Amino acid sequence: MAARRRATTAPVRPGWQWEAANEAAPLQSGSARHPLADAASSAALRRRAQEIEGAFTAIAPALENLAPQQFEPGFAARAVQSLRAQLQLDFPESMFAATWLRPLDLGALHASCVIGTFCRLVQRGFDRGLSDTSDEGNVEQLIRRWGFHAVDVTACADGRLSGVTDFILRVPPAIVAFRDAHAGAMFGAAECLHNWERIEISRWRHARPNAAREPTRYLKIGVYHFSSADPHHEGCAAHGSNDAAASGALLERLEQSAQAVRQVHGAEASIAILLVGVDTDTDAIRVHVPDATGRMDTRRFLDSNVLYDETQYIARDAGKEAIRHAVARCTGVAADDPATEGMRWFCGYLLKNNFGQIEAVRSVHGGRYADGGHTEKLIVVGDAMDDLQLRNLAFQVHMATVEEGAAELDTGIRILRHHHAARGLPVPVLVHKHFDPRIPDAAAVAESEARRLALAVRARHAGLVARGQLHLAAMIREVDGRALSPVALPELEVAQ
Amino acid sequence: MAARRRATTAPVRPGWQWEAANEAAPLQSGSARHPLADAASSAALRRRAQEIEGAFTAIAPALENLAPQQFEPGFAARAVQSLRAQLQLDFPESMFAATWLRPLDLGALHASCVIGTFCRLVQRGFDRGLSDTSDEGNVEQLIRRWGFHAVDVTACADGRLSGVTDFILRVPPAIVAFRDAHAGAMFGAAECLHNWERIEISRWRHARPNAAREPTRYLKIGVYHFSSADPHHEGCAAHGSNDAAASGALLERLEQSAQAVRQVHGAEASIAILLVGVDTDTDAIRVHVPDATGRMDTRRFLDSNVLYDETQYIARDAGKEAIRHAVARCTGVAADDPATEGMRWFCGYLLKNNFGQIEAVRSVHGGRYADGGHTEKLIVVGDAMDDLQLRNLAFQVHMATVEEGAAELDTGIRILRHHHAARGLPVPVLVHKHFDPRIPDAAAVAESEARRLALAVRARHAGLVARGQLHLAAMIREVDGRALSPVALPELEVAQ
Repeated sequence: MAARRRATTAPVRPGWQWEAANEAAPLQSGSARHPLADAASSAALRRRAQEIEGAFTAIAPALENLAPQQFEPGFAARAVQSLRAQLQLDFPESMFAATWLRPLDLGALHASCVIGTFCRLVQRGFDRGLSDTSDEGNVEQLIRRWGFHAVDVTACADGRLSGVTDFILRVPPAIVAFRDAHAGAMFGAAECLHNWERIEISRWRHARPNAAREPTRYLKIGVYHFSSADPHHEGCAAHGSNDAAASGALLERLEQSAQAVRQVHGAEASIAILLVGVDTDTDAIRVHVPDATGRMDTRRFLDSNVLYDETQYIARDAGKEAIRHAVARCTGVAADDPATEGMRWFCGYLLKNNFGQIEAVRSVHGGRYADGGHTEKLIVVGDAMDDLQLRNLAFQVHMATVEEGAAELDTGIRILRHHHAARGLPVPVLVHKHFDPRIPDAAAVAESEARRLALAVRARHAGLVARGQLHLAAMIREVDGRALSPVALPELEVAQ
Repeated sequence: MAARRRATTAPVRPGWQWEAANEAAPLQSGSARHPLADAASSAALRRRAQEIEGAFTAIAPALENLAPQQFEPGFAARAVQSLRAQLQLDFPESMFAATWLRPLDLGALHASCVIGTFCRLVQRGFDRGLSDTSDEGNVEQLIRRWGFHAVDVTACADGRLSGVTDFILRVPPAIVAFRDAHAGAMFGAAECLHNWERIEISRWRHARPNAAREPTRYLKIGVYHFSSADPHHEGCAAHGSNDAAASGALLERLEQSAQAVRQVHGAEASIAILLVGVDTDTDAIRVHVPDATGRMDTRRFLDSNVLYDETQYIARDAGKEAIRHAVARCTGVAADDPATEGMRWFCGYLLKNNFGQIEAVRSVHGGRYADGGHTEKLIVVGDAMDDLQLRNLAFQVHMATVEEGAAELDTGIRILRHHHAARGLPVPVLVHKHFDPRIPDAAAVAESEARRLALAVRARHAGLVARGQLHLAAMIREVDGRALSPVALPELEVAQ
């Protein structure tokens, strides 16, 4: 427990956890840089992670410092000023009107600061384009050249996958056309079909991202996760921490989606599917390389950790060749098989990308996060927000209504309650809906949807809300925009 | 009240209401057949209406007859046999196990019979193709030739529009690509955009219904309603029985939908929109003919009743010419204006079609339904069911969740309660979800969605359910199939 607290509240000093974690898991000899790991990206990601982590870490001390002053004259104005200076958050003075009979609700303030900080950082618009180019050229063009015109990623809602795009897979956001999160990564085949249709219509009508006659495919990636350190407890909660269940169920969904597109739009409309597993203790990945017929197996995969070790002490080009041959062996074809080369390239691309993250976790965390469990800072409900990436940042549940998503919502709240209740803090829940500004009235529709969703969360967890153990806010934003607009929620009715 | 009861429970004798209604609203001189009214279609629709009406009318007497026998030995088997013979419904004997301490719940049985009869008639697959051809040829080809490749109709959920496709507009079901129902016809622009995209992708990929390069348009029709007899009470409940509000809000939605498609897919992707009003007392329609720029006005329309009278005593061809000129005047163009001729043809087609219904209501109901209000037999919640058409058959609320559709659901239940409570009957609610069998697992998904929706209705109206005033069933079916599969719902928990 002490280690867990230290991991999230101690000031971040590069390397400090290196030694600490080292005691538990001795660092393997030869922790030299891997020639294929992108050190520049890792350093930039590390700086960004520190800025994000630091912003959240500053909240509790700032409020702790304010608490004793709350009954002093002129407190409200000073508090507003102090939080603006320390947290870069703007609150109205009315939030700090304390009397001896009604002191400040510092738990609610903490949750407001967490949500405010999250929104501030989302709008801060971090440059996520670092990995837009690889040493082979522009990634978007590369991926297109290798046969894929759009990438759709569904990962588990679990907050340990909050950094899956930027940190773990290290794919540039520009290539990700759709990204959502569901408990257990259990997306719906109908939803995938709809996304495919949206891209397809754009290809036919506007030749975007490329013309429909080009023989490229839509790539649907499903990301499950497991824990190598504590497989039966820290795996995927939605699948009872059972790796085989998590990967098997997701593989079935992927196959169903491909089948749905084929059956609705004909055999030539086939989409590519790829199953990826993440070890949440090391951020290493398992890529379930499809065979020559496109079929995957939950037991057949390449482990990036193993490949990392196998290629660490050889030259870059030899390392790339080793990966290329490993992927070909896993596919069951020759390394120059033309029919499978696009997917093989992509699998190798993901494995190689992940080397940077393996190296980062090895150098900063001794190869294994000291805290393998959940320390998410908030729950995001509604539409996925992918702008801000960091492990254990947010438990994200994609849902239109609580009626449909109740089980996922409850899982998220149960997970965060475990962590927050121990520290006496309420669970911050941010309802987020995006809208397409090209559709008339869409902002007003999104606003009423966000409000309805927030009230449904409040109604479902009325007890927690009444006891101050769950704090809600709602925001809307344009799909591709940066600005978040708060949605006013009706005041809580106080029981007499 | 007596008249209302008679209208729904008396055996249907053609003509009997003719005289009755005549006393209130004297029949105009000259009730001869209109040369443009399709008498054959009307006769077939009348026979079908009688069969449907008769099937529901038989329920109460059948149950009334069984009630006194329920304590006799061998009753259950006899009841099953009797309902099979009289209502063509198959129930298990266990439903008829009555004891002196627990007599039959005849209200629940009535609701089960109403839902069962509705489902039986839906599956009966009435031939709705009668109006597939007009005297100009096959309607589907005609509509295509006049510039429309798909028709999407949203009508108000109000049960008095339950016959809008077959009886009022008299358009063959084959030309209706999408059909849904919302309280106040308040569909969403995003939903319309999605439907447009589904058709468009099929045009591009499969040249169905026609190739995308053909310069035809998608036609979105919105149908509101009003009451000429009692405008401030029997109009659209969702718009406070205010005609201007009903037509104005719907026109705005139509314009927003067109704008959404244009803004997302470019100016050349423009869809056609058409606003139609129905007088629920006479089934006459107002067609808000677009002007040369496609713009409509809630105050500019052609009234089918007026046109009917103007053309009743002239020859067929002269009548058609009169309609053609009336539409051109309303459009503000010459009758041979080529730019607007497709839409003008369609407006004339709807107006002329409706003559058959005006004539039917004049000849059977003296021109005005004796009962202008609501006498819906059940509520259909979930996906719209359009197979079975009849005025006041069902209040249909298209919704995915009660969380989103609560207000519409409550409106429907309030309306049906008014009618059913007076007769001591529970309101039958049928939850219906369809699925696309080409999507793997879609049946199981639809089943769980239907069950969840039914349980949400039950939870929202728990009081009514507990008092036996609301009876629920759930069904799923393939989108284009005939068979309905019942979805088992968990037993009600009986309060101790």
